[in-house]
Amino acid sequence: KPPDETDNANYFCEYAFLYHQMDMLEDEHRTGSYFNAIAWNPDSFKDKVVLDVGAGSGILSIFAAKAGAKEVFAVEATDMAVRSRKIIQAQGLSHIIKVVQGTVETVTLPYMVDVIISEWMGYFLLRESMLDSVLIARDRFLKPGGALFPSHATLFLAPVGSAKACREKQQTFDGERQHFDDFNDAMTNYYGSDFSCMRGEFLEEQRKYYLQTGMFVNLTPKQLASGGSPLLEIDLLRITVEDLKDVEKPLTCSMRISKDTQLEGFTGYFNVMFRGSPQNPTKEVIELTTAPTAGTATHWGQQLFGFFPPLQAKSGDVLECRLRIKRQKKNHRLLQLEAAFTLGSEGNVREKREDTWYVD
Amino acid sequence: KPPDETDNANYFCEYAFLYHQMDMLEDEHRTGSYFNAIAWNPDSFKDKVVLDVGAGSGILSIFAAKAGAKEVFAVEATDMAVRSRKIIQAQGLSHIIKVVQGTVETVTLPYMVDVIISEWMGYFLLRESMLDSVLIARDRFLKPGGALFPSHATLFLAPVGSAKACREKQQTFDGERQHFDDFNDAMTNYYGSDFSCMRGEFLEEQRKYYLQTGMFVNLTPKQLASGGSPLLEIDLLRITVEDLKDVEKPLTCSMRISKDTQLEGFTGYFNVMFRGSPQNPTKEVIELTTAPTAGTATHWGQQLFGFFPPLQAKSGDVLECRLRIKRQKKNHRLLQLEAAFTLGSEGNVREKREDTWYVD
Ligand SMILES: Nc1ncnc2c1ncn2[C@@H]1O[C@H](CSCC[C@H](N)C(=O)O)[C@@H](O)[C@H]1O
Ligand SMILES: Nc1ncnc2c1ncn2[C@@H]1O[C@H](CSCC[C@H](N)C(=O)O)[C@@H](O)[C@H]1O
Repeated sequence: KPPDETDNANYFCEYAFLYHQMDMLEDEHRTGSYFNAIAWNPDSFKDKVVLDVGAGSGILSIFAAKAGAKEVFAVEATDMAVRSRKIIQAQGLSHIIKVVQGTVETVTLPYMVDVIISEWMGYFLLRESMLDSVLIARDRFLKPGGALFPSHATLFLAPVGSAKACREKQQTFDGERQHFDDFNDAMTNYYGSDFSCMRGEFLEEQRKYYLQTGMFVNLTPKQLASGGSPLLEIDLLRITVEDLKDVEKPLTCSMRISKDTQLEGFTGYFNVMFRGSPQNPTKEVIELTTAPTAGTATHWGQQLFGFFPPLQAKSGDVLECRLRIKRQKKNHRLLQLEAAFTLGSEGNVREKREDTWYVD
Repeated sequence: KPPDETDNANYFCEYAFLYHQMDMLEDEHRTGSYFNAIAWNPDSFKDKVVLDVGAGSGILSIFAAKAGAKEVFAVEATDMAVRSRKIIQAQGLSHIIKVVQGTVETVTLPYMVDVIISEWMGYFLLRESMLDSVLIARDRFLKPGGALFPSHATLFLAPVGSAKACREKQQTFDGERQHFDDFNDAMTNYYGSDFSCMRGEFLEEQRKYYLQTGMFVNLTPKQLASGGSPLLEIDLLRITVEDLKDVEKPLTCSMRISKDTQLEGFTGYFNVMFRGSPQNPTKEVIELTTAPTAGTATHWGQQLFGFFPPLQAKSGDVLECRLRIKRQKKNHRLLQLEAAFTLGSEGNVREKREDTWYVD
């Protein structure tokens, strides 16, 4: 069976719930930034034909219609499409917004569009791989010179000094060794069945699916051991699905440590910018950021990955990272980060770490 | 796309983890009852050919081999099969137990078997619908006169007097009304978008996926307002997959209330018996029960369903239940209980309740 069918069925399942759409709508920084990006740039929407990729409740289509769009195609794969039609009708916008139920990869539209709006970002920016769908929509439906909202995205890494979540993770993981030994004693004593041959595989399973897996956190600025450093910068007009899948060339970034500290982990977060297109730039450039320094907690939080054990860093050290973002084989919407870190002052690497981390 | 493929992919996914197999193995009442049923009945296994349906770690196959089986086929769908082979080898039993990876619906065996062992029970006995697979295995592979371990299963209902979990559920559900109104105020005030047309659908979603959904609990005897009453009795040798899917005839049971009390809900739990077959009965009849009165908490706990609002019962009242166990359309491994309750003393029904509850 093709894994994509199963993944798709699971992926879309959640979005069919009002509860989940409301969770996103209630993220004020998220929804407010899209609102501002659209409502404060009416020139970008006045009399334009707009495509909303993954319309969900229809909110972005409503923003676009209110900003003066001539016609909006709200494409949504799940049954949420049926509800968005009611919501749009309640705003008196059914004459402008056409809801089309289906995947943007398979629907047809009567003509090309001037603007694509979409909220496709997942944890660590790329989880869910929904950006693929936006790029396919762009190649299928965007007029030359047309604009994407958002137009740019950047994924940042930053070293994390102190993080209780990482220490607790290490402790829980250490507890699993004892757990296994107790389990094996019971199996041997009660049932005469020795499971010790599974010890290594069990700990490996715990390492992969627990210890090395990213955590959802809301970090505070003081937990960071340096500012964020851009790892990946995406121009949505130019990047291709192939670029996103290309794992041969690792991404790199370099972080200058600002204090003597342990590094208990590293974090990934992102921003997106609404710049319009070169031919149709926005007058007001809006930024939506998930940075821990922004003071605007979002439903994305940040992803936190642990160094086990922590690294010992000094003020002025540089943490260099080479990292490949791969898709997990079992579920192409989840990520696997193959990373190599070095820490030291110029020319003198004191610590090296190579490992795989997961965004599940 | 056929729903079964997706369901199957999801269903089997979890069982491929050692963590999950260990959870089951560590349930002492579960694993211990299977151990006793097999080890204390060596006559049922000596020189027999055995099929283990859904062997997982291989533990039941190991018990059968140690009880004297001549040959055991351990059929397991997931990659746990590879691990069970190692575990079996570590016990020095590879010459007796043959691990066959695949679904029992599709594998082939060289000959028919004398005994089928399987641990197929889910929440509310039937969740996961794995009993289907056992019955298919029986029809494909069991010799006439052969035995099933377990041989019988009973699903019980009991009325629950006091249950904090039900009261809390009602409160949380009530809170969702306010949640929606706050949400709608924010959407209207900040974004000029009125979502009030979704109020009814949102509350309906919360009712179905939250309020009416069974909870995992470990009840204590004093919470019960009567003993358990059998709702469904299964003879594994005789029941068919069609019987299990037949929803036309509702199941019924009748519970005599033993004290003046509110009924905040009802609970479902089960037992299975190891009696062998009429031709080959077990000498020691073992029972594995998940009853709250048994003092043996299992990983199944009990399923608790709420009455909202509670019913007012008096000592001597009878709670009558007519209930259809259906499979959920979106996922045939999950259940939907369409039930009608009446409460009263003979000939005088004081309260009626008709509703659907879900086992998710
Ligand atoms: N390929 C695809 N085609 C159509 N819809 C898709 C899609 N991939 C994801 N989606 C939908 O995209 C939505 C992403 S969530 C964003 C919803 C809404 N635009 C908002 O900003 O609030 C989900 O509802 C999901 O079902
Ligand atoms: N149709 C089917 N064919 C083969 N294996 C199946 C199956 N349906 C479920 N299973 C497997 O059955 C197991 C049920 S859990 C029980 C595991 C083991 N017998 C024990 O008692 O500890 C899971 O490992 C699951 O993957």
